[in-house]
Amino acid sequence: MGPTAGIDLGGTKIQAVVLDPDGELAGQGRTRTPVDGGADAVVGAIGTALAGAASAAGLAAGDLAAVGLGSPGQIDQASGSVIGAANLPGFEQPVPLRDLVAEATGVQRVALDNDVNVGTLAEQRHGAGRGHDDLLAVFAGSGVGGGVVLGGRLRRGLTGAAGEIGHMVVVLGGDRCPCGRDGCMEAYAGRISIERKARQAAAAGRRTVLLDLMRERGRSRMTSGVIAAALEAGDELAHELIDQAVAALAAAIASSVNLLDVDLVVLGGGLAEKLGAPFTERVAGAVAPHLFASPPRVEVVGAALGDLGGAIGAAVLAREPLGP
Amino acid sequence: MGPTAGIDLGGTKIQAVVLDPDGELAGQGRTRTPVDGGADAVVGAIGTALAGAASAAGLAAGDLAAVGLGSPGQIDQASGSVIGAANLPGFEQPVPLRDLVAEATGVQRVALDNDVNVGTLAEQRHGAGRGHDDLLAVFAGSGVGGGVVLGGRLRRGLTGAAGEIGHMVVVLGGDRCPCGRDGCMEAYAGRISIERKARQAAAAGRRTVLLDLMRERGRSRMTSGVIAAALEAGDELAHELIDQAVAALAAAIASSVNLLDVDLVVLGGGLAEKLGAPFTERVAGAVAPHLFASPPRVEVVGAALGDLGGAIGAAVLAREPLGP
Repeated sequence: MGPTAGIDLGGTKIQAVVLDPDGELAGQGRTRTPVDGGADAVVGAIGTALAGAASAAGLAAGDLAAVGLGSPGQIDQASGSVIGAANLPGFEQPVPLRDLVAEATGVQRVALDNDVNVGTLAEQRHGAGRGHDDLLAVFAGSGVGGGVVLGGRLRRGLTGAAGEIGHMVVVLGGDRCPCGRDGCMEAYAGRISIERKARQAAAAGRRTVLLDLMRERGRSRMTSGVIAAALEAGDELAHELIDQAVAALAAAIASSVNLLDVDLVVLGGGLAEKLGAPFTERVAGAVAPHLFASPPRVEVVGAALGDLGGAIGAAVLAREPLGP
Repeated sequence: MGPTAGIDLGGTKIQAVVLDPDGELAGQGRTRTPVDGGADAVVGAIGTALAGAASAAGLAAGDLAAVGLGSPGQIDQASGSVIGAANLPGFEQPVPLRDLVAEATGVQRVALDNDVNVGTLAEQRHGAGRGHDDLLAVFAGSGVGGGVVLGGRLRRGLTGAAGEIGHMVVVLGGDRCPCGRDGCMEAYAGRISIERKARQAAAAGRRTVLLDLMRERGRSRMTSGVIAAALEAGDELAHELIDQAVAALAAAIASSVNLLDVDLVVLGGGLAEKLGAPFTERVAGAVAPHLFASPPRVEVVGAALGDLGGAIGAAVLAREPLGP
């Protein structure tokens, strides 16, 4: 196959890459996600990012053999649509993104999947999971998403809903999750949950620098950087909340390994990447006591591709047939 | 392929079946598991059960194209050995069962797997999972085991340890499991755990008929029949413990479905079969609120093959190449 492009469509930016026929990174381009103009404006901006990446690779958009798209929200593969991507302006209703991008770019072969699946593919083919046919990828950010690769193939599931590790139950009757259910792992390890608990604790009179740091940095949401700085400053509440996040991530990861017997877990996402290797090592340490197989043989490692992972994974997606 | 036999090796009995070339049940035989004489006596008894099943099918053992074995304990596929099957007399050390049975029966092609995997295969090919390429099987008895079929193939895992749904964490920091870890599903839903809690509650002065029923029936262990009778009698503690079992089973099942997006869960094992359809329906009802995909499309059904499931699954195993 010729060169392929991958697009990581995010709420604030659109990242594009071009991979050469050997699968190596040949160029990249990026633009802001338009806030006005709806889906049409977003499709236009995808074209801009794509042209930038193609040009950086010494190509025209017409030279691309295929384009892959990673998007937030649910994906309906039958229609090539994005559903319920609430943080994308103009995507309140389903958007037939696959066909819109094919029309706008003139590239006939366009593949579409959700951002977590393409991030998982990227880590497995080009990142920390290289050489592993079986792995679990976990992305901890505002929420917690996951991807499962078994026998070299991404497990999408019968309705495309596989990989929801953030909604595995780790505390029966436990804390309320942003999804509305109780005791999900994300209720402890997602940044939205962490922020809510920090606000509740502060409102109840608990001392913490978490909210001060947000204000100082002009943030309306609790970023991973704010959490990292609070940990650094020895903030007791921040340490408590991250202890809970580590325990919850570890329980869901260990449960998944006990069920599937994979030998690698790749931990990424904004929170994990900002807190870095010490966080990954703490999660690995907390996974071990829950593992049933003896001797346990699973390794927990940090994601390797960072910000470019989504776009690289989308380009990988474009290169291969869509699996079940 | 010609007729194949399957053996379900249990701590108290050895069940054999013969399937005709179309995979239909052609005969069965059964014998008690010898308590003296070690592994050699067990292999001899396997031969006896096999000869009985072959004879019932109008065949001699030499007519069999292949024999499959389902055994408790861990299986080392490389050596065809059973490891750590504590409830089989003479199996304290690893037993190279595959080769011993091939020698004893003269059948060259012998396949070996653990009892939960063959039970899962049986339900998927001949039982409640017929027609489903993707399913989760859960067997609740003294412990809780599980099997995962994805894309028509049993998931054994990289070390053969996949399917341990009983050791998924459903309550972080929760009750001690017989495996020695904390908060596993089996710590709430396995009969050994239920018995331990009943004994502790009774010792602490709690009124319950559970232990009286055991004594009346001359049981040293709490059987599924004792639990069923106590529920029937309106015993409050029994209801409480089964409520917990239902909740824990449901949490682990829902977590697995959220991770893998299968559309069928088959619930079997001594406890589930004795408590019957009302129990399965309660578990199904408790799974639903934890499901992330919307609308949820998973069905929870009772296992269909009962006592013969293991042997049928072993015969299915014998008919096909061993997957990863």
